[in-house]
Amino acid sequence: MSAAFVRIHEVGPRDGLQNEKAVLSVGRKVALIESLAAAGLRDIEVGSFVSPVRVPQMADTDRVLAALPVLQDVTYAVLVPNIRGWQDFAAARRDGAAYEVAVFISASEGFSRSNLNCSVAQSIENLVPVAQAALKAGVRLRGYVSCVVDCPFDGPTPPAQVARTVGRLRDVAPMQVSLGDTLGRATPARTLAMLDAVLHDVPAEDIAGHFHDTGGRALANVAAALELGLRDFDSAIGGLGGCPYAPGAPGNVATEHLVALLHRLGYVTGVDPDRLGRAAKLAKELR
Amino acid sequence: MSAAFVRIHEVGPRDGLQNEKAVLSVGRKVALIESLAAAGLRDIEVGSFVSPVRVPQMADTDRVLAALPVLQDVTYAVLVPNIRGWQDFAAARRDGAAYEVAVFISASEGFSRSNLNCSVAQSIENLVPVAQAALKAGVRLRGYVSCVVDCPFDGPTPPAQVARTVGRLRDVAPMQVSLGDTLGRATPARTLAMLDAVLHDVPAEDIAGHFHDTGGRALANVAAALELGLRDFDSAIGGLGGCPYAPGAPGNVATEHLVALLHRLGYVTGVDPDRLGRAAKLAKELR
Repeated sequence: MSAAFVRIHEVGPRDGLQNEKAVLSVGRKVALIESLAAAGLRDIEVGSFVSPVRVPQMADTDRVLAALPVLQDVTYAVLVPNIRGWQDFAAARRDGAAYEVAVFISASEGFSRSNLNCSVAQSIENLVPVAQAALKAGVRLRGYVSCVVDCPFDGPTPPAQVARTVGRLRDVAPMQVSLGDTLGRATPARTLAMLDAVLHDVPAEDIAGHFHDTGGRALANVAAALELGLRDFDSAIGGLGGCPYAPGAPGNVATEHLVALLHRLGYVTGVDPDRLGRAAKLAKELR
Repeated sequence: MSAAFVRIHEVGPRDGLQNEKAVLSVGRKVALIESLAAAGLRDIEVGSFVSPVRVPQMADTDRVLAALPVLQDVTYAVLVPNIRGWQDFAAARRDGAAYEVAVFISASEGFSRSNLNCSVAQSIENLVPVAQAALKAGVRLRGYVSCVVDCPFDGPTPPAQVARTVGRLRDVAPMQVSLGDTLGRATPARTLAMLDAVLHDVPAEDIAGHFHDTGGRALANVAAALELGLRDFDSAIGGLGGCPYAPGAPGNVATEHLVALLHRLGYVTGVDPDRLGRAAKLAKELR
């Protein structure tokens, strides 16, 4: 893998669709995921094993996994919040397919209490059994840390607090950590300050950027993060998901916009822009 | 003027056209400038009083000035390199129109020697008579400083050197200084470091950003500069001019892209995107 390669983690079918009102059929989800794989995306988040009551959009993730083709070079990521979710995942996974299990915490106490109903420290405790199960099963782990720049409850998140939280998460198990600007208020300078703190302890290849475009600066923040050596970014096809804190506003940066920027900057993504355009069209029709 | 207002300095008809092969007729230049004013642009660089041998594209600036309408709220900027140019400008200016006279230096010695055939200190000396004439005549001055991030001859430009050069230029006369990333290699972090140094001594309202999109990061650098309080940016309609150091590559950031970003970020520009789109179409047909 050359230095100019940037890995895109497509989160539309999970992080995106989970924040859309429509609940898609298994068939439509699989069609969307197949179009993303056909465009050259190699890391695709396809669902989550969470409570079907809390997140009805993801209730059929087991059937999505059963229906997806086993592809040589594609890793399917699933969000697994607890050991119950792990058991569901373990039952649904198919031989031959590559999976990644994602866990989720917040860098801010306010968001952790509101979203996970516990402190940050407790949320890290809670995911230990999932991490251990994944390690034992040889399934790759990934951590999401939200509110790395601002929290809707606590205000700005101090960079040192983000660095501490990432460190505590990675004490549980080796994993890449995706840093989320959940409110989409990050700016290049704040992104750089936050990443500076984190990269003091963690190599850049173990960090991904997850920028929301709510404030219109997602691509500027990606450009800033690239400067500090980040080569992994999350995005959602068609900007699926929007912003849960500002109805109608953009949330996850759109994969097609991210790819256009990266190609313009001379990076290699392995993604075909024409095919990606077709996937984006499909995503917009589905929402 | 609210804090959210961003002033765009349209440089397409001068800085842009001067780097295009085609030499436009006075009529076509005036049509382009009128379409820019109609779109709501209030600061338009319309020509330069330089040697017609060195820059044949600008040889008819006196006739452009004669043909342009006197508009209540539009300032026409002209580049004036020396007292000979000032005399030509003084003869061509029309009563009732608002003008701004721009002077040009480099932050790097290599570019200064190559482009102006003298040291940076000498180039500042050379523009003193123009600055004095403008002050005396009550014409607003503006300074361009090129190579504020990289120089094609000297490599990276140290931020302290840019700050020093800006200070020496403003010792000549009060003026807004536009800082040019001439090679288009700036990144958000380098932009922030350079501006940090400059803004230590100069208020943000006296500094403009002039970013080239050669490296694809012009808008990311604008976003970074906005964070530090800059509210003045240069751009060229349709991206006129390209990059003199990389044929076919983009140079000046396109005004229509800059306006789209600023509006997305919630800034007010006074520019009508639809009319601007028509001006961009015209610019692309002319080049």
